[in-house]
Amino acid sequence: MKIKLYFFGKQNDVSEREKELIRRINFRKTFDIIPLNPAGIKDAAKAKTKESDLFLSKVDDQDYVIAFDEKGTEMTSPEFSQWLEETWVNEKSVQFVIGGAHGLDPKILKRANYILGLGKMTWTKDLCRHMALEQIYRALEIRHGSSFHKA
Amino acid sequence: MKIKLYFFGKQNDVSEREKELIRRINFRKTFDIIPLNPAGIKDAAKAKTKESDLFLSKVDDQDYVIAFDEKGTEMTSPEFSQWLEETWVNEKSVQFVIGGAHGLDPKILKRANYILGLGKMTWTKDLCRHMALEQIYRALEIRHGSSFHKA
Repeated sequence: MKIKLYFFGKQNDVSEREKELIRRINFRKTFDIIPLNPAGIKDAAKAKTKESDLFLSKVDDQDYVIAFDEKGTEMTSPEFSQWLEETWVNEKSVQFVIGGAHGLDPKILKRANYILGLGKMTWTKDLCRHMALEQIYRALEIRHGSSFHKA
Repeated sequence: MKIKLYFFGKQNDVSEREKELIRRINFRKTFDIIPLNPAGIKDAAKAKTKESDLFLSKVDDQDYVIAFDEKGTEMTSPEFSQWLEETWVNEKSVQFVIGGAHGLDPKILKRANYILGLGKMTWTKDLCRHMALEQIYRALEIRHGSSFHKA
């Protein structure tokens, strides 16, 4: 089972704290983080369309796509852990995607098998990626009964 | 008007990205981030009590205390911006507080004037601080009509 997280930006945007989370996730699951070129267009709608076309060219029909969006469904961390476990048991390939500077295009939201919310607030794409990585790591630690998740 | 954010940890825990947010917040408001000594006790209940006593010794009766907690009220970023503006117009001093490794003691939650949620998921205290800083910065940028907040 392959898990990937796509984001619009450069590998250099990934902070040391995020790299540590990626290392730790890889102790449990094969996990890759993949930068996609931001559209570089000022017009928000056109930028989102160009970025969605790029992302959609990377995924296959059978991939299970999880998109992060502030209008998505919220879960607690233990709920997310259980849901993710059930999801990757049933799917061959799970692909997470984080929107670019202007958020996600409706085309990606339509293609997504699940839209996941990280609270009602708006986050920068860099912080959203860090948050997503911490929740994926936490989900795995909850699943394995480690002491990382204290709640 | 003074704004402070208290957290349990060391000044060294504050990442470069957080320091940049603190610098930018200070263009708009006088803002300090203040580390408090973690209790260093394994027992979660005792640790939380010791940490809450330390925090409560720092705040005055007239301070407006905003505690971050996953059971707190969620707002969108524009709602938070407007609410914060109204709050610091009416208050002399606003103090944010983020829980330690085991979260916040009921004594702090009881003292708090407002309990604010950053989504239903559980975050590490370091990431919670980064998220809080980004939302305070975003709230100020929304208030000043800058292009930082795009939604």
